[in-house]
Amino acid sequence: MTPAPDLSDAPDPFADADYRAAVVDLLGALGYGELTAFSRLAADAELAPSLPDKAALGRQAVSEFHHYELLESRLRELGADVSEAMQPFVEAIDAFHDRARPSSWLEGLVKAYVGDGIAGDFYREVAAYLDPATRELVLEVMQDMGQAEFAVRAVREAIDRDPSVGGRLALWGRRLVGEALSQAQRVVAERDALANLLIGGGFHAGADLAEIGRMFARLTEEHTRRMGRLGLSA
Amino acid sequence: MTPAPDLSDAPDPFADADYRAAVVDLLGALGYGELTAFSRLAADAELAPSLPDKAALGRQAVSEFHHYELLESRLRELGADVSEAMQPFVEAIDAFHDRARPSSWLEGLVKAYVGDGIAGDFYREVAAYLDPATRELVLEVMQDMGQAEFAVRAVREAIDRDPSVGGRLALWGRRLVGEALSQAQRVVAERDALANLLIGGGFHAGADLAEIGRMFARLTEEHTRRMGRLGLSA
Repeated sequence: MTPAPDLSDAPDPFADADYRAAVVDLLGALGYGELTAFSRLAADAELAPSLPDKAALGRQAVSEFHHYELLESRLRELGADVSEAMQPFVEAIDAFHDRARPSSWLEGLVKAYVGDGIAGDFYREVAAYLDPATRELVLEVMQDMGQAEFAVRAVREAIDRDPSVGGRLALWGRRLVGEALSQAQRVVAERDALANLLIGGGFHAGADLAEIGRMFARLTEEHTRRMGRLGLSA
Repeated sequence: MTPAPDLSDAPDPFADADYRAAVVDLLGALGYGELTAFSRLAADAELAPSLPDKAALGRQAVSEFHHYELLESRLRELGADVSEAMQPFVEAIDAFHDRARPSSWLEGLVKAYVGDGIAGDFYREVAAYLDPATRELVLEVMQDMGQAEFAVRAVREAIDRDPSVGGRLALWGRRLVGEALSQAQRVVAERDALANLLIGGGFHAGADLAEIGRMFARLTEEHTRRMGRLGLSA
C-alpha cells in the first residue's frame, strides 16, 4: 500500500472544494453501503441454521449500523446533507444486492466475507490519499469485527461435510466479484470527484496509472487469498 | 393493572423451581421475539420510501437487538442456556411472521406499531406477577423507543393523501391481531410454566379467572385505541 502523503504542513484540505466533494462522495458511498449491508445481513439472519448463528449474524449487522451512524455524523460535521450524499450510490449498491441475493445461509456468509473483504481492501487503499481524520474514520468503519473468522469456520465445516458444496460456492464467489466490479466501475465512471481522489489533483498527490494498476492487482490477490481461506478456488 | 404483590419479605423467588422455569420461559419468549423483530424490521427497511426512513427503521431494529442482548445476559445470569430457552417459541413466532409478512412499507409500519403495542401491553400485564428485578427488565425491553410516533405520523399522512389506503390497512390490522392471538394461545397451551405465572402458584398470588378476563378486555381496548390513533377502525 502506498504510504499516506505527509499532510502535517498542509493547509486545511477541506478548503479545496473538489477535495471536500470527493470526501462527501466517499463517505456517502460508504454510508449507503453500510446501511444496506446492515439490512441485508439482518435479513439473511433469518436463514441461519441455529439460534446462536442467528444472534451472531444479528450482532454483525448491528455493528454495520453503528458504522453507518459514524459516517452519518461525520457527513453532518462537514455540513453535508446525509441523504443527498448517499443518493448517487443507491442505484449501484441496490443493483449489486439485487443481483447477488443469497439463496442459502452459506451463500450469505460467503457474500458477507468476500464482499466486505473486497470493499475493505478498496477503501483502505483509498484511505492512503485522505486527510488523517477522514482516513481514521474510514479505517475504523472498515475494521473486521470478527465476521471473517466466523464465516471461514462455517464454510469450511460445510465443505468438510459435503465437498460438492465447494464447487457451487466457488461459482457464487466469482459471480459476486463480477457484480461488485461492474457496479464499482459504473460508480467511478459517473463520479468525477471520487475518481480524482485516486488519480490526484487539488491539494494532494494521487496515484499514477501504474500505481492504480498495481492496486487492482493487490485487490485481486487478496480476493484469491480469501477464497483460499474459505477452501474455495477463486 | 393489578398492583404487584409485595415481595419485600418474600424468600428468593428463584428458589422455587416452577417460578424459575416460568421466568426462563418468559425471557426466552421475549428474547426470540426481539431477535426476530430485529431481523424482520431491518429487512422491512428495504421497503422504505426514502433514505431517512430507511435509517429510522434501522435505528429501531438496532434497539430491538440491544433488548435481545439484555434478555440474553439475564438468561445467562439465571444459568439458563439461551438457545434452549428460546427454542420452544421459535415455531409460533416464526409462524406469526410468515403469515403476517408485510407487502408494503405502510403494512410494515402498522405491523410494528400494532404488534409491538399488543406484545408490550401483554408483557406489562405479566410483569405485575414478577419479582422486582425481572419486572424491571421486562418493562425496560418493552419501552417504546419512539417507534409509535413515527408509525402514527407516516400512516396518517398516507391516509390523508389517499383515503382508500385506510380500508386496506384496517383489514391488515385485523389480520395481524388474529394471527398474533392464535399463536399466543398455542404457546400458552403448550407451556404450563408460563400459564402458571398468570394464574398463580408457587411463591406468588396469581390472577383469578375474572382478572384474566379483565386483562383480555384491557388488551382489546388498547388495541382499538391504537388503531384509532392510526386513523383506522379496529
